[in-house]
This record gives sequence, structure tokens and C-alpha cells, in this order.
Amino acid sequence: MALENNLRIYRSEDFAQMDKRYRTQLVNSMPGIKALNLVGTRGEDGAENLAVFNSIFHVGANPPYLGMVVRPDSVDRHTWQNIQATGSYTLNAVGADFYRKAHQTSARYEKGESEFLETGLLAVYRQGVVAPFVGESAIKMGLELQEFHRVECNGTIVVVGKVVYVELGEDLLFEDGAVDLVKADAVGSVGLDGYVSAAWLDRLSYAKPDKAATSILP
Amino acid sequence: MALENNLRIYRSEDFAQMDKRYRTQLVNSMPGIKALNLVGTRGEDGAENLAVFNSIFHVGANPPYLGMVVRPDSVDRHTWQNIQATGSYTLNAVGADFYRKAHQTSARYEKGESEFLETGLLAVYRQGVVAPFVGESAIKMGLELQEFHRVECNGTIVVVGKVVYVELGEDLLFEDGAVDLVKADAVGSVGLDGYVSAAWLDRLSYAKPDKAATSILP
Repeated sequence: MALENNLRIYRSEDFAQMDKRYRTQLVNSMPGIKALNLVGTRGEDGAENLAVFNSIFHVGANPPYLGMVVRPDSVDRHTWQNIQATGSYTLNAVGADFYRKAHQTSARYEKGESEFLETGLLAVYRQGVVAPFVGESAIKMGLELQEFHRVECNGTIVVVGKVVYVELGEDLLFEDGAVDLVKADAVGSVGLDGYVSAAWLDRLSYAKPDKAATSILP
Repeated sequence: MALENNLRIYRSEDFAQMDKRYRTQLVNSMPGIKALNLVGTRGEDGAENLAVFNSIFHVGANPPYLGMVVRPDSVDRHTWQNIQATGSYTLNAVGADFYRKAHQTSARYEKGESEFLETGLLAVYRQGVVAPFVGESAIKMGLELQEFHRVECNGTIVVVGKVVYVELGEDLLFEDGAVDLVKADAVGSVGLDGYVSAAWLDRLSYAKPDKAATSILP
């Protein structure tokens, strides 16, 4: 760690010596504001599970695939066990009116204790999707397990799912198909425990080499 | 596609029939507000490349690993070629004062045309990191390629890198190591072309089963 012009600099040896909790906070927050979703699953015994994730990423649009990271040795393990057992999971956008309940799902409940019951969030079901959705969520996505990859360096699992169901309010769609996440009150995630609301700066036209992009925000 | 109570519902068959651009907008934006970073790389010939990515995700904190998705058949290909050639890349937070320049890097410049020169963003170098950083960026991260996985269903590549360098302002760090992305003016990404600013809702204490979390935002 070096102090230069009020800059903090960390290199590999600094990370190795860093307090564990400090390092966890730093590394989880520094890559930026992340998508926040509640992941709903159901065990083979029917027990419902709900867990908050901020590691969702885009893999492809046609067909629609989304990725997610699970740590099999952590509070994520029930989610991953259920996905493997049923092949089904849901992603549910976290709204500004219930982000505290979403946070609460990260408590280490025992297997069998439903985070839906513990937090008061509503489990709802849709035809063709085994896993439960969050009734309060403005954007509901149902996925089927497509494939997964074990990250060799630390044993985490990259899960890729195919989106088979999407439900959202008509009023949240721009004409071109983009979702107005600001209007949806979608909460962004900072690190392990931070929650932010979003305001539009702009939407910009497709970038071309010799032309400045223009605003396409209605 | 079905209209029920002003809800839009899409299933697999709807996605398959959907206009390509509409589907791309929908699928890229629906998972939530994403971390936005400029990825800096350098070819074996020394040519600098800069590209905007919103697929960065957390893989581990000790040692620190971050993941990223690249599509080898797209504008990402120069980034991926350079990462494979040198093993080095940088992630640079996009600030509210230069998100338009970050957007412009997504134009399809020819190989050899530097996005640094085209956009006016400053390439800066740090000891021990081959790839260039973005001088304007408040949070600079240097990474080394750790491993990669080919996603079988659509050929995209999940890249995992080890963070070997981090530089940020002292004033952006909370006492516990978390980064104040709001103070950093870090821009969030919505889909392909949307940019949002963030405001704190809260930071919450570690969740426990029988206790309500409390605010830990200073």
C-alpha cells in the first residue's frame, strides 16, 4: 500500500496481507454498480429458497442466455443444489421498496427455512417454470440451467441459464425493447451491502467511427 | 407475447420470433443496472486498444479475481486477442464526466486505430502492468489473465483475471474498505446504450436470521 498524491495503491502483496473483511469489501465494490436480483429456486422436496445475487451477466441474446456465479461452500449452496436438482431458477429485479427484504435473504437460514416466509416476500408461480418468482418484483425472469463451468483458481461455479420466461409491465418498455430500469425503480448493488437508486444520464445512439452519438432517451 | 393486466409476457417461442434488435435491447437491459468499465489492452505490436464492457462480475476476493465475457466474433475481438497475447488488461471505472467518450469506444474502429486517440481519453501506464489505464478514471484496476472458459451454447468466452494492481483516491474508500461509487461518480450501464448515475439508498449491516439489519452508511 502506498500513498501518492492522496492515491491509494494496492498490489498483489498488499492484497495478500490485507485484513480479510477489508479485502472482501474492497474487491466486491471496486468493479462498479452491479445488477441486483433475487434468485428463486425450489428443492426436489418442494422447499422454496430465495437468495440475493449481484453476479448476473449477459451471455447472449439469441437465444437469451444469462450467467451467474455461485460459491458452493457459501450461503449460495442451497440455490445451486436446487438448480442442479430441478434445472429451474428465476431472477427477480429488486425494487427500491423492498431492497431491505432482499438484503435479509443473505442471512444464513437453515435448509428448510424459506426466505420467502422469513422476509414476507411473496412466492408466485407461472406456468412452465418450476421455480418460484417474487411477486413484488417488477421484472421477473424464468431460466433453465444450460451449462456450468468450474472456475479452477477458486472453485466457484459459473452458471449459464437460458431465459424461457419474462414478465414485466408494459410501461417499463421503451419502443425499441430496452427496459426502463429507472422507471422500474430497480436497485443497483455496491459490494456486499450497498444499495443505490439510479437516474438517467442518457441513452446514446449506436456509436460510429466518425460521428458523435446523439441522445435517444425519449 | 401476451397482454395480461398491462403485463408483457415473453416465452421462448416469442424470443425466437422477435425482431433481432428488439430482442437484443430487451435481453441486454432486463437483468439490471450493470458495472461499466473501460477495458484497456495492448497488442504485441504495442498498439493500444480501449473498449467499454458491462459484463464484469465478482469471482473471488482472496486472491482477488474478476470475470468478464468477451464475444470473439464482435468488436470485443481486439480486446481478447490482446489479452491472449500479453496476458494483461485493465479495468477503468467510467465517470459521469466521460461516459460519452466511453460509449464512443464501441464504434467499429479498424485494428490499429487507437480508441484512446479517437476519443481523447488519456492512456497512462503503471509499473508492472503491460496494458494501458485510462488516466481520467477514478478507479483503475490492473489484471492478469488467469483462465478462460468457452461457453458451449453460443461460443462466448468467460475470462477470469487476477487483480494485481488497484489505484483509487483515498477519499473514495469507506473505513471498512468498501468503495464509495456514488462519490466516485461511477456510471451504471443499462443495456447497450443507457447510462445512469447513482444515489445511495443505504448500506446495511450483515444480515442475521432473527435481527433486522441497520444502516452502516456514514
